[in-house]
Amino acid sequence: MYIICVYDVQEKRVQKVHKLLKQYLHWKQNSVFEGELTNALFHQLTTDLQKITDTTTDSIIFYILPSEKNLKRFLIGVDKNSTSFIL
Amino acid sequence: MYIICVYDVQEKRVQKVHKLLKQYLHWKQNSVFEGELTNALFHQLTTDLQKITDTTTDSIIFYILPSEKNLKRFLIGVDKNSTSFIL
Repeated sequence: MYIICVYDVQEKRVQKVHKLLKQYLHWKQNSVFEGELTNALFHQLTTDLQKITDTTTDSIIFYILPSEKNLKRFLIGVDKNSTSFIL
Repeated sequence: MYIICVYDVQEKRVQKVHKLLKQYLHWKQNSVFEGELTNALFHQLTTDLQKITDTTTDSIIFYILPSEKNLKRFLIGVDKNSTSFIL
């Protein structure tokens, strides 16, 4: 499945959340990651995130698509990570 | 079509961009908006955004889906705008 993840977490946890997401997905912009994940990896990621976030103040949204196939992108301005797909 | 919009713009333009996006889409979190738009409104929005952003430093990504039908969401933590679908 294809994942777009956006997060809004307290400043002291930003680095930790960013670092964890980077292990699973590609960084796109500010607090946005995306990428293809299996169900198992998605479950692992969300479990790990729940351990390091404060669910009373932080907010992490996952948009889940069956695949990237029907997803189009339109960009205004700079591509903050044009190398995101060079692994 | 269904739109998820994420933006990463210089601080002095955040308010302006937020205000404009709010006229077209529903605020979800920090710098994330989403909603259904016609082609014409999407064109109008992107034209308006191009006028108020600096495309050499700012970055606004639109994820475009044919519809909301195949889109699922998974939230960790708080729903920053639980009333976003009450229009």
